[in-house]
Amino acid sequence: MLKRSSNTAVRPSSEPGSCEVRAVDEDRVLRARQALLAKPVLEDVTDAFKVLSHPTRIHLLQALAVGELCVCELAEVVGLSMSATSHQLRDLRRLRLVEFRMEGRLAFYSIRDPFVLGLLDSAVDHYAERAAS
Amino acid sequence: MLKRSSNTAVRPSSEPGSCEVRAVDEDRVLRARQALLAKPVLEDVTDAFKVLSHPTRIHLLQALAVGELCVCELAEVVGLSMSATSHQLRDLRRLRLVEFRMEGRLAFYSIRDPFVLGLLDSAVDHYAERAAS
Repeated sequence: MLKRSSNTAVRPSSEPGSCEVRAVDEDRVLRARQALLAKPVLEDVTDAFKVLSHPTRIHLLQALAVGELCVCELAEVVGLSMSATSHQLRDLRRLRLVEFRMEGRLAFYSIRDPFVLGLLDSAVDHYAERAAS
Repeated sequence: MLKRSSNTAVRPSSEPGSCEVRAVDEDRVLRARQALLAKPVLEDVTDAFKVLSHPTRIHLLQALAVGELCVCELAEVVGLSMSATSHQLRDLRRLRLVEFRMEGRLAFYSIRDPFVLGLLDSAVDHYAERAAS
């Protein structure tokens, strides 16, 4: 039986998956707290996942994984306007995931941090497998 | 020299990282398009990354990686109200990342899909390393 520092009735919740009383094991809370990621790495991790949480940005990264492309080409690949495409590329640049070089009047983008492609590939494999099962 | 199907002047952009003319290599566009993930897996992947793009949800998953906790304990670990904690847990449940079991009047949560913990750990290692370098 676990030691519980408090066990107080709270307003009964009709919502499934909620506690109807308050009962906290302080040791367990302490142990869990020690596992929590702190800033600034927490912010970097959150930002990286935020970038990957948008279908267009996923498509831009997948397109660039094939090779360097200019903004007009990327716009055509993802089926968006140049301006909307540039907007998403700015987010990817801010996170240092992609970079560009000018060639004449064209801006060619490439992957700067291949790490996110690894994250993306793992997720694709996992969910494709789950969908097939 | 690459074959370009079109090379048309567009409104010059003052924004860095944009093309000032339109120049598209159709073969390259086609190759990149073939690499794009389609629905429904695209939606699953996007949803998984969306869940991980919030510091509280990252903390809830890290706390549950240590072991099962009830909602009151989770609320104490992440420093939020029971209601705010339940709200985030609902999102994690919807994505089938966590599950709960009732023990008396307490709802105990645990990790259902450990895959996301792997994604999270990889990201933490990567950004912690980058921060240290």
